[in-house]
Amino acid sequence: MSAPLSDASLDQLFRHARTFNAWQDKEVTDEQLGELYDLVKMGPTSANSSPMRLVFIKSKDAKARLKPFLSENNAEKTMAAPVTAIVATDFAFYDHLPRLFPHADARSWFLGNEPLIQATAMRNSSLQGAYLIMAARALGLDCGPMSGYDQAGLDAEFFAGSQVKSNFLVNIGYGDPDKNLFGRLPRLAFDEAAQIL
Amino acid sequence: MSAPLSDASLDQLFRHARTFNAWQDKEVTDEQLGELYDLVKMGPTSANSSPMRLVFIKSKDAKARLKPFLSENNAEKTMAAPVTAIVATDFAFYDHLPRLFPHADARSWFLGNEPLIQATAMRNSSLQGAYLIMAARALGLDCGPMSGYDQAGLDAEFFAGSQVKSNFLVNIGYGDPDKNLFGRLPRLAFDEAAQIL
Repeated sequence: MSAPLSDASLDQLFRHARTFNAWQDKEVTDEQLGELYDLVKMGPTSANSSPMRLVFIKSKDAKARLKPFLSENNAEKTMAAPVTAIVATDFAFYDHLPRLFPHADARSWFLGNEPLIQATAMRNSSLQGAYLIMAARALGLDCGPMSGYDQAGLDAEFFAGSQVKSNFLVNIGYGDPDKNLFGRLPRLAFDEAAQIL
Repeated sequence: MSAPLSDASLDQLFRHARTFNAWQDKEVTDEQLGELYDLVKMGPTSANSSPMRLVFIKSKDAKARLKPFLSENNAEKTMAAPVTAIVATDFAFYDHLPRLFPHADARSWFLGNEPLIQATAMRNSSLQGAYLIMAARALGLDCGPMSGYDQAGLDAEFFAGSQVKSNFLVNIGYGDPDKNLFGRLPRLAFDEAAQIL
């Protein structure tokens, strides 16, 4: 049994965290990306299926490969971000299950069941993408998640010949709160989105 | 710019957190569920679309309505959990966009575009489901997420006549580490799941 985190930590993770559109000129190191992955990988997925794959775009060359597929309003801020994570999904995730879930023949639950593969892959890759956002914030980094891009084009550039497809993108770095930060948008009230039965 | 959270907090959120299968006999109050929602709702979604809907199953009557749709291995632990959250998705989420995203006519981006509605709803409902798990842990609660249940049956019981469909379930409470806690399963190494370009 754990105590709640401090209010400052809850603010950092949820209440004061923002989607940033501009970035300070400050590197995110490869070591930080390793620490980030080591947190993200621990988040729960169905049968430990862990279908998310990540491509961290950092170099000039990699940014040039990414740029043509970004929507107009996402291009400039993404080129300026220290790192852009392509959050992707491996639709052949079940081939790892003999190692990741040794309790049962979990691979056989999926093999040939295309609707279950699709639903499990999309749901759990998205869960892991959210763990990525929360883990980055927990490490003192800021995020700018986006789904506005040419998915087919990006997938052909980065994932040709594989069963991996992109899910969404997340700019990662140290946000600049003085540039292009939108006003906080309203949220649905408890009674609009939730009920207790 | 924020500092990283303490190691103890990172452990609580990611490294030491576990999927629990047994629960201490300790209530989760309605006030705690309100605090939980107030964190979860702040997590980012595409165009602030916020498609997740939550039904917190707490009462004996509600548990009896849920039970027939649980898979055999999920039934007993779920009946013993203080709360089970049905994480659901409102596929008519775009009707709230004039209020949630007033910058643009975002409702018109979705109206009649069924593939975009489906992808946005599933991706963002799943992101919000992960925020729920992380927020519960941040508040000192434990989780047991599950996707093994009769979705069509549960949806007919709880969401008939609406555009809401369930996504997955999360038992919430204070875990009992001495009962039915599985050994920690392996995770994919950085190089198996990620690359830096």
